[in-house]
Amino acid sequence: MSHPAPRTIPDFDKGQGMLPAIAQDAATGEVLMMAYMNPESYAETLATGRAVYFSRSRNKLWRKGEESGHVQLVRGVYVDCDADTILLKVEQLGGAACHEGYKSCFFRQVTPDGLQVVGERVFDPAQVYGKK
Amino acid sequence: MSHPAPRTIPDFDKGQGMLPAIAQDAATGEVLMMAYMNPESYAETLATGRAVYFSRSRNKLWRKGEESGHVQLVRGVYVDCDADTILLKVEQLGGAACHEGYKSCFFRQVTPDGLQVVGERVFDPAQVYGKK
Repeated sequence: MSHPAPRTIPDFDKGQGMLPAIAQDAATGEVLMMAYMNPESYAETLATGRAVYFSRSRNKLWRKGEESGHVQLVRGVYVDCDADTILLKVEQLGGAACHEGYKSCFFRQVTPDGLQVVGERVFDPAQVYGKK
Repeated sequence: MSHPAPRTIPDFDKGQGMLPAIAQDAATGEVLMMAYMNPESYAETLATGRAVYFSRSRNKLWRKGEESGHVQLVRGVYVDCDADTILLKVEQLGGAACHEGYKSCFFRQVTPDGLQVVGERVFDPAQVYGKK
């Protein structure tokens, strides 16, 4: 007899080992970014209280803020009904989640006239990350 | 000579034809759900002002609220810095985005004592969807 393995929550199997994770400003409710987590980054997030993602492009753990210092302190972790999406409520140190210097990565609105920048720019990326 | 095709925004090629879309309550900022969009559902969303997703499990367009009547009226569409995630600010008719009757699909919080239901239940799914 075989028994299916018990489902975990979040259920990383649903995302072939990786699930989307939304980071929302715990104070203002602003959606800051979306990235991916694997079980290791999720476990480290819970253990440290700092958002850790999995970078698909670099194929390794991405400790948010490791370069910029703009760490996300996790104030709450939520899972959706299907257990395949994670929501983090965070305190964003440095005031900006986006590597382009905006508070939120969703700084562009789609309008009938095209994309409009509506977000607030908090820092100059060249200052934070240095010239490359 | 070959020229790469120009990138579109959002860039559905980055998600192999499908991108995550976050729905956020336009009035309260609450994150309601996350689903996926393909170019067709995105275009229909813009054209109609109602959120249309692509159901990966049913492999077809998912006009949110088509069964329950709980349509999402789109108040704003945003794209992130990488142009691979969409954010919708919506007015959720019926008061609940989740098929389980909760205002938000993220109605469960991960705590040291396990999952805690923290969301507000607005309707009884059996009433809305009928017995199946």
